[in-house]
Amino acid sequence: MSDQKPNLPSLHTVLTPQLLDLYEIKDSVVVIIDVFRATSTIATALYNGANKVIPVDSPELCIEVGKQTGGITAGERDGKIIPGLSYGNSPSEYPRSFIENKTLVITTTNGTKLLHMALKQGAKNIITGSFPNLTKVVEFIKSQNAPVILGCSGWKNKFNIEDVLFAGAIIEEVKANFDIHCDSSFMANQLYRQQKDHLTEYIKTVTHWHRLAAYGLEEDMLYCISKDTAPSLPIFKEGALINQA
Amino acid sequence: MSDQKPNLPSLHTVLTPQLLDLYEIKDSVVVIIDVFRATSTIATALYNGANKVIPVDSPELCIEVGKQTGGITAGERDGKIIPGLSYGNSPSEYPRSFIENKTLVITTTNGTKLLHMALKQGAKNIITGSFPNLTKVVEFIKSQNAPVILGCSGWKNKFNIEDVLFAGAIIEEVKANFDIHCDSSFMANQLYRQQKDHLTEYIKTVTHWHRLAAYGLEEDMLYCISKDTAPSLPIFKEGALINQA
Repeated sequence: MSDQKPNLPSLHTVLTPQLLDLYEIKDSVVVIIDVFRATSTIATALYNGANKVIPVDSPELCIEVGKQTGGITAGERDGKIIPGLSYGNSPSEYPRSFIENKTLVITTTNGTKLLHMALKQGAKNIITGSFPNLTKVVEFIKSQNAPVILGCSGWKNKFNIEDVLFAGAIIEEVKANFDIHCDSSFMANQLYRQQKDHLTEYIKTVTHWHRLAAYGLEEDMLYCISKDTAPSLPIFKEGALINQA
Repeated sequence: MSDQKPNLPSLHTVLTPQLLDLYEIKDSVVVIIDVFRATSTIATALYNGANKVIPVDSPELCIEVGKQTGGITAGERDGKIIPGLSYGNSPSEYPRSFIENKTLVITTTNGTKLLHMALKQGAKNIITGSFPNLTKVVEFIKSQNAPVILGCSGWKNKFNIEDVLFAGAIIEEVKANFDIHCDSSFMANQLYRQQKDHLTEYIKTVTHWHRLAAYGLEEDMLYCISKDTAPSLPIFKEGALINQA
């Protein structure tokens, strides 16, 4: 990965939103990664036919935008639906029979914050990624001929293994197409290669697993590390994520 | 590592100085890590009998403090000694025959910045660590019965593999003694375990290797990943690092 490939675009991995300002975001393709569970849920809702997903950064705004759009409001805190909202953050809540042709207004903290930061800094395109739509993300970033930023949402600005693991999964598929000089990307890819054949066991060791398992969300999390189960391409346009797959 | 061990102190790894404010530094033992090459050079100079090492964050201050203390001034930029200073950042410049009983005033950017941040936030003790003094660091943090922060200096606030690799080497030796719930620490230790049997080859893949190899510093860097070759314990007291080993 470290050989000079000057004709290829660059790729960097941003380990937490707190590090985003160290990178050149302008005119880059930014992949927002929030494996547990926002970007997994977004991929799933859009794959199952949601018209759009509007990510917002507070319950108050979620209620407000829900009213304006007639959308379904969703968000959790401490494993429970936030008072005033109607649904939670679980991908299993959004099957086709429920979400098709509807708008989902979802409040998340880590992922939405990162998305808004990338938008402000002039990203060329912003998409969301997670294991359920891995291949769609890979195909899209290969097609863009632009620098790529893999943006890990982390947890309250701290580093999260599951997000960097997904960054490593992307890198595994695209590394021949980019000029990578980025220790975060090397580490992400090495971690993924080390763990890819036993992801199900490995994921149970990370801090976020323990946090969410305490709320009984093990099944949700196992879904969130399953590859290509919701092959949508959520791309951010005019304030909402729509499926461009 | 993720089992609850409530009677043991915590341990966290801070991947870059830009993330330090997310952690509880007050009353913690902070290990400043700047493998290439500041903390390797500091361990070496103190092991070879330097009276003390004064880390400063600019060439101007280095000259000023050098005058006040009669110390040797040292610092590099782009692989060359900074104009106005007398020596460079290479551990090989500080054998016993030269540095014994002298004061070294060294200007580094990443490591010194982190040290001053930890100081300001009320750390209980600040020490510096690198492979040449690994075992001394391990013994010290085990003896303190206090929370530990492994502070990686990184490169211009970005994540650096060599620093986190050393954090992983520490964790490998102390994990039974701490209650660790920190994905950064899990990742650091996994990376170290994955690479520890072929560190010499692995280190040649990281971005900093390429940056310094362009200045012909390969031998320096191989020394900087050699374990326990300079078993000192640099501890920060009254503005300087002294050897408490």
